[in-house]
Amino acid sequence: MSQPNPPQSGPAAAAAESNRKLWGGRFAESTDQLVEAFTESVSFDRRLWRQDIAGSQAHARMLAGVGVLAAAEGEAIVAGLQAIGEDIAAGRFQWQQALEDVHMNIESALTARIGDAGKKLHTGRSRNDQVATDLRLYTRDAIDELADLLDALAEVLLQLAEREADTVMPGFTHLQIAQPVSFGHHMLAWREMIVRDRARLLDARKRLNQLPLGSAALAGTVYPIDRAYVAQQLGFEAVTENSLDSVSDRDFAVEFCAACSLLMVHLSRWSEELILWSSPLFGFVKLPDRFCTGSSIMPQKKNPDVPELVRGKTGRVIGDLQALLVLMKGQPLAYNRDNQEDKQPLFDAHDTVAASLRVFAAMLPSLQVERAACRAAAAKGFSTATDLADYLVNRGLPFRDAHHAVGSAVAYAAGKSCDLADLTLDELRRFSPLVEADVYERLTPEGSLGARNHFGATAPQQVRAAIARARNRA
Amino acid sequence: MSQPNPPQSGPAAAAAESNRKLWGGRFAESTDQLVEAFTESVSFDRRLWRQDIAGSQAHARMLAGVGVLAAAEGEAIVAGLQAIGEDIAAGRFQWQQALEDVHMNIESALTARIGDAGKKLHTGRSRNDQVATDLRLYTRDAIDELADLLDALAEVLLQLAEREADTVMPGFTHLQIAQPVSFGHHMLAWREMIVRDRARLLDARKRLNQLPLGSAALAGTVYPIDRAYVAQQLGFEAVTENSLDSVSDRDFAVEFCAACSLLMVHLSRWSEELILWSSPLFGFVKLPDRFCTGSSIMPQKKNPDVPELVRGKTGRVIGDLQALLVLMKGQPLAYNRDNQEDKQPLFDAHDTVAASLRVFAAMLPSLQVERAACRAAAAKGFSTATDLADYLVNRGLPFRDAHHAVGSAVAYAAGKSCDLADLTLDELRRFSPLVEADVYERLTPEGSLGARNHFGATAPQQVRAAIARARNRA
Amino acid sequence: MSQPNPPQSGPAAAAAESNRKLWGGRFAESTDQLVEAFTESVSFDRRLWRQDIAGSQAHARMLAGVGVLAAAEGEAIVAGLQAIGEDIAAGRFQWQQALEDVHMNIESALTARIGDAGKKLHTGRSRNDQVATDLRLYTRDAIDELADLLDALAEVLLQLAEREADTVMPGFTHLQIAQPVSFGHHMLAWREMIVRDRARLLDARKRLNQLPLGSAALAGTVYPIDRAYVAQQLGFEAVTENSLDSVSDRDFAVEFCAACSLLMVHLSRWSEELILWSSPLFGFVKLPDRFCTGSSIMPQKKNPDVPELVRGKTGRVIGDLQALLVLMKGQPLAYNRDNQEDKQPLFDAHDTVAASLRVFAAMLPSLQVERAACRAAAAKGFSTATDLADYLVNRGLPFRDAHHAVGSAVAYAAGKSCDLADLTLDELRRFSPLVEADVYERLTPEGSLGARNHFGATAPQQVRAAIARARNRA
Amino acid sequence: MSQPNPPQSGPAAAAAESNRKLWGGRFAESTDQLVEAFTESVSFDRRLWRQDIAGSQAHARMLAGVGVLAAAEGEAIVAGLQAIGEDIAAGRFQWQQALEDVHMNIESALTARIGDAGKKLHTGRSRNDQVATDLRLYTRDAIDELADLLDALAEVLLQLAEREADTVMPGFTHLQIAQPVSFGHHMLAWREMIVRDRARLLDARKRLNQLPLGSAALAGTVYPIDRAYVAQQLGFEAVTENSLDSVSDRDFAVEFCAACSLLMVHLSRWSEELILWSSPLFGFVKLPDRFCTGSSIMPQKKNPDVPELVRGKTGRVIGDLQALLVLMKGQPLAYNRDNQEDKQPLFDAHDTVAASLRVFAAMLPSLQVERAACRAAAAKGFSTATDLADYLVNRGLPFRDAHHAVGSAVAYAAGKSCDLADLTLDELRRFSPLVEADVYERLTPEGSLGARNHFGATAPQQVRAAIARARNRA
Repeated sequence: MSQPNPPQSGPAAAAAESNRKLWGGRFAESTDQLVEAFTESVSFDRRLWRQDIAGSQAHARMLAGVGVLAAAEGEAIVAGLQAIGEDIAAGRFQWQQALEDVHMNIESALTARIGDAGKKLHTGRSRNDQVATDLRLYTRDAIDELADLLDALAEVLLQLAEREADTVMPGFTHLQIAQPVSFGHHMLAWREMIVRDRARLLDARKRLNQLPLGSAALAGTVYPIDRAYVAQQLGFEAVTENSLDSVSDRDFAVEFCAACSLLMVHLSRWSEELILWSSPLFGFVKLPDRFCTGSSIMPQKKNPDVPELVRGKTGRVIGDLQALLVLMKGQPLAYNRDNQEDKQPLFDAHDTVAASLRVFAAMLPSLQVERAACRAAAAKGFSTATDLADYLVNRGLPFRDAHHAVGSAVAYAAGKSCDLADLTLDELRRFSPLVEADVYERLTPEGSLGARNHFGATAPQQVRAAIARARNRA
Repeated sequence: MSQPNPPQSGPAAAAAESNRKLWGGRFAESTDQLVEAFTESVSFDRRLWRQDIAGSQAHARMLAGVGVLAAAEGEAIVAGLQAIGEDIAAGRFQWQQALEDVHMNIESALTARIGDAGKKLHTGRSRNDQVATDLRLYTRDAIDELADLLDALAEVLLQLAEREADTVMPGFTHLQIAQPVSFGHHMLAWREMIVRDRARLLDARKRLNQLPLGSAALAGTVYPIDRAYVAQQLGFEAVTENSLDSVSDRDFAVEFCAACSLLMVHLSRWSEELILWSSPLFGFVKLPDRFCTGSSIMPQKKNPDVPELVRGKTGRVIGDLQALLVLMKGQPLAYNRDNQEDKQPLFDAHDTVAASLRVFAAMLPSLQVERAACRAAAAKGFSTATDLADYLVNRGLPFRDAHHAVGSAVAYAAGKSCDLADLTLDELRRFSPLVEADVYERLTPEGSLGARNHFGATAPQQVRAAIARARNRA
Repeated sequence: MSQPNPPQSGPAAAAAESNRKLWGGRFAESTDQLVEAFTESVSFDRRLWRQDIAGSQAHARMLAGVGVLAAAEGEAIVAGLQAIGEDIAAGRFQWQQALEDVHMNIESALTARIGDAGKKLHTGRSRNDQVATDLRLYTRDAIDELADLLDALAEVLLQLAEREADTVMPGFTHLQIAQPVSFGHHMLAWREMIVRDRARLLDARKRLNQLPLGSAALAGTVYPIDRAYVAQQLGFEAVTENSLDSVSDRDFAVEFCAACSLLMVHLSRWSEELILWSSPLFGFVKLPDRFCTGSSIMPQKKNPDVPELVRGKTGRVIGDLQALLVLMKGQPLAYNRDNQEDKQPLFDAHDTVAASLRVFAAMLPSLQVERAACRAAAAKGFSTATDLADYLVNRGLPFRDAHHAVGSAVAYAAGKSCDLADLTLDELRRFSPLVEADVYERLTPEGSLGARNHFGATAPQQVRAAIARARNRA
Repeated sequence: MSQPNPPQSGPAAAAAESNRKLWGGRFAESTDQLVEAFTESVSFDRRLWRQDIAGSQAHARMLAGVGVLAAAEGEAIVAGLQAIGEDIAAGRFQWQQALEDVHMNIESALTARIGDAGKKLHTGRSRNDQVATDLRLYTRDAIDELADLLDALAEVLLQLAEREADTVMPGFTHLQIAQPVSFGHHMLAWREMIVRDRARLLDARKRLNQLPLGSAALAGTVYPIDRAYVAQQLGFEAVTENSLDSVSDRDFAVEFCAACSLLMVHLSRWSEELILWSSPLFGFVKLPDRFCTGSSIMPQKKNPDVPELVRGKTGRVIGDLQALLVLMKGQPLAYNRDNQEDKQPLFDAHDTVAASLRVFAAMLPSLQVERAACRAAAAKGFSTATDLADYLVNRGLPFRDAHHAVGSAVAYAAGKSCDLADLTLDELRRFSPLVEADVYERLTPEGSLGARNHFGATAPQQVRAAIARARNRA
């Protein structure tokens, strides 16, 4: 059926050049320049070079072990890759866009360096299982780095908590003053969040630590490969169960970015508090000058840029997670080129979280707590009204009735623009005859704080016990 | 300082009515009707009634145990709550919007039923730790339900895999025919995804299974509470470490929705494949009529509505996750009213996932595989070209050269509109003199399939071994 | 080809019952109950009944007009639908899940009511173009409602701005005190945001106001339909250009939810400020009791629940947008069942925005501004340092040098814990000899405010001019 | 109150170095190196250099015009900036991280080049309004570029539609064959999507095209600036109304990314179809070799990488939008450092969309349509069943009854594994006695196509009319 279709452009001459592509055998035209630039990934995936070389070395050793390669070939490949790694580390390696990605760049350099043995490296594998292996190794390294950074930051918080265990500050709900709390207790609340973050990352690590190599394109390979040996060399705890799943699966990247998103939500919450506390209207803390920057126009400004930026960077990591979820959703099995887009969100989440953890760990030890301002604020806002209600309950009033009586007393004091502790005993007794003179000691911030003295509560004694537990666990 | 500010509306008379609110002591005006409707949550959080009652009963038993309540009071509360639970289960309970939420509705009914003892139930707790407890119990139940549904679906896939272990179908990459695979192997790839999903949910369960009750508003309480006893009654493995964190933390809801999002991404990928395979242009499977619907205009249509809807519902669960992340990001500690918005995304993700798992488990056993169509497609598209390359490698050609030679053979066959197996031996030898007559057995789908015979690969023998491993593990 | 496939379940008897489905002709089994529940939409799409009836009436009139229906048939249909609408409005209509959706429920009731003419209504259309029409009508109505609510809220802000034009408050950057601003100016900043929101919604309205009906399933229809007549009856400005696009397109829903997301981001920013300003540590505003709620445990609490909830609801609308984007991405043309999931996010975004606008418009007129507290804060934090720099520039110093000199003066004053205006002339002259005695009038908040007197700036005179411009435009 | 707070580290010596910062006057310590690296933006915001220079030149001309600068100073600044721009364009400019951002780098270079006049450039402005101006100019340029790319792509589609107006292909709903459509009609459906995208971007352009400069830090400035003159020089249609809003507002970036997200959703839908159509099981189109790439392991593979990558990149742009929404949500006014994070999502969305449009416009003209395969598929799947129903309606049967009769005929033909057109007249008449011999001409794909002949429908005649309308409009 003849039809006026567009002419198949690209002269035969181009076919020769197309042979530069390692897969170019069946292609009659070389790749369009625009397409080459659009589809290349080496500009960002070269970051995987360490993982790619380690994976290839393990693969080559295995191929030699099972006899697919001669021993000398295996050794030549391992040594050649080692040398290439040294070139890359030293900045001497020439990355080429025309070679598409980190894998083809390294394989091509290997063949240039050691000859025909290099052409045998790709026996029994595919880029599909190769990149899956590289990415798992990368994500495992990233988790290990973040776990260390989280440990360091958790220790910073323990020390802050210790230093400020006795510091009284207002606890807030609805950004209204609720009850006095220990500043150290607040630091331990922050610490709990990242203890969970660390556990979440380690759960993800456990799940990803299985070798996909050997899945080849999607179906496995005809060579007598020894996957367990490769896994053992690369520190994987197991080999993956299913070749189709292995080349399609990016769960580990999504799970990593989900854990990073939640971690950033936590840092954003801390940041929000640091920004509030640094505002002159709170004045609870001061950040050292070297962690702040100024204004181009207002000479007096000293801004808490670090927490502001961390708060801002949270959106970016959440965006990375969303990008990955959208990317994976709806792809049929097995590998599709869409997946090339899995790397930049993963790298960006890793970088952003690592930088944020590092700068917080550097900044927080220098946090100057304005104890007098904290204490003064803790005495405001009827923060001990609950203590008064509990006082009445102890004297036999049902809690709901006590709550109501104290609510009326608060309304009365607010009308007089004074605090509960400023009311006379007679005034207080108007709201409940159960009130006695001993009530006043319950109405101080310190009295309120000290009375909350059970596991998990804010009394300084409990804060110290929590610190001790944390140290014992570590 | 006098100022023409807006008059404080709301006559004194209103104050009386405001007493309907259990917290109304300090308020001079009753709540605006618009505000009451805007802020109520009982229309959706009443779903937590079972958890709320269980939590309150445990709290009351503990209060009696430590002497804050008289034994008789504790018993009256427990029994009263039991009766209320029965009323709710029977649809006899009158939920009131003016009472705001599930907690206040139940507490109010309790006092109406048992008198003053009811007013003592809230001693030593706050709605902040109460709702945190309810939500953890709810999420734990949801995880248990989903884990069971995932088990059932995994078993359905094992049976399908067993039934279709020998069925040859084309494996795809880039939606191009790549290599023959076993249909059963494909089903096991799906299974791997939900095995991970289940593990992810159980990790989340482990992390959430700690009792927040006793944190009260944010600082703990002055009563000599026994949190370990409450935890033990409610099946929690531990008590939370920090009161401020306990009332602020919704990590478990985010982690649950993240796990659900990834799970739905998996079901969406399956759905995409079922939709493709059901298209007459693929024709690989048929769904029974009772799982399909028709068109209002086109009399011939039989549509795969179930997988389409599952694919569509994926967006909604991802949206739920995004809603929760945005919700939590940037909130200072401790509780803020924003958090009321945590429930609907959580409920929606749970419902959507449960319904999707249920309908898939019901539908898949009836999936009719069109084996002839699958096999015919597997023979198309040069799906055994890799086998030819591997054949040449076995005869000593480096893989890259073998790849190139076969690529040229494919281009030649494509030009003749025939397949590799249709070329004569002479024709094949033009591309490599290493080809011998035994090559043809490698070029059939069955030959290709059977040759991929190692752990994780697609040979039917391996599929059966994988099924056996799965059964042993369960 | 015989194969041990699953038996085709469902006895022939079921076929009879399947005829209840209006599309059941080719189906041998009735729909599985689980599937019926999973796929039904009438539980939520019945909300479109007004639009569905209006669209069907216009369609019937057109069919009669072009002679496809007899005039009497057309009239019977129009009258029958009218009566059904009255039943629905009165709560007398029996919605049936087995009839799937709003369209089939209404068509089925019509036939039951008027007989065979009812079966002719669906001539020349499909549910695909019918639901597209309904949804456009719905979204158009929603936009019109939101535009009115935005107008009302903008007017509230104008009045607040007028009332507080002379109120001095601190303007913040980085939550540090930056420069004095007019409270009224701040209200006008809020107003600008919703002026843009309104314009964005109206742009979306313009784009969606085209009739898709007549596209039928996806290809148009064989009947001599008059689309322009239908468009005119339904208030559409044009008919859509392409039938395939018309049944696939949900841009209008995405665009609506994107506009709503940005709108909610604005309300969330206002809320954040209202919450800050209501905190006792700011104390800039008071919300009336009737717009606040209390605590179940802390008797003194009065919480700004409305802005907190609005801030919290922002996540949900952003989640709705994300759900729709994920839903549409990757669907091939034309209609897929996934699209049933387009409705709930759209409805939810609409409801959430409307309720939030309504409650803000009710609350803001009662906002009590604590002018003394605002003024006191505006005098803190070296808020007039920029004025001092500008003073020096006026005397000839380059701005960068002036900035540096004032920065040093601020550091000096901060060391003395006093403000710039508290330094003596001699002290000030240490930082620049250009300072004269007239400098002090520039260092008051009022002086600073009044000096920023150009289009768009904060001087009260400019605030009043901006109000006048807004009133003239409206 | 003395307290054992951390020592204020940073020796006095550091203060000297801190003067490198243009805002360093009040700072006693130089910025921590970690903080400098964490907070710098020049590595990415230098991309704004053209806009920054244009804005600064307009500002300088205005300052000279109103007498704040001497005429010679104004000229020196304009010329100095011009020279700096040439240095940057030539790659000769030394960007310094210590100078934080593009603004400080350029201002610092200006002063180095022209002396004290350079220090006066920042008079009457702030980085807050400066960056807002730069970003609006950037986004305006981006919109103009995308609008041109969309025009070019729309023209490509018109030509394709013209070329393939008579090509019959199956139209799909639910990926089931629905009715025959014209391939050209399908191309016009795609075109409609990007016509809306273009309009959406231009609406955003209209809204953003207002000058924020003159808002200074947040409150305006004390200098007698002429904002209208600056606006006119920079091509802005108006000046912004409110200084607080002007430095806080990033609506234009969100709106741009929302429009880009929807645009990418469209390209993803096209991509999904191109991938399907390129699959050998559809075989509707061929992409030229130069737009495809191969496999590292499977020699036969030719993959549609371009549409796969475009589909994959959609997630990234949606992630950019989500990042921006999260970023802005909850920030109080006015400028916060979070906003530094606004640039990378904006740049990334712009780059991704521009590259995707470019590569599609290059690829689509070479799309080879396999007309025979399209036509063959259009004849499958009972695609003309609706035509048979319409035939019966024309003979007087109510549509619902006709639908049911044809449904039964389809079930019968499916049982015989034949198509409707293969049934004898007698067989057809079993389902309705109204069938006559003329029915068969209605059952061909061409007959079906030609009969859908009204505005917006798929008949080739209508496709040509739609093309003509599009050309007339352009």
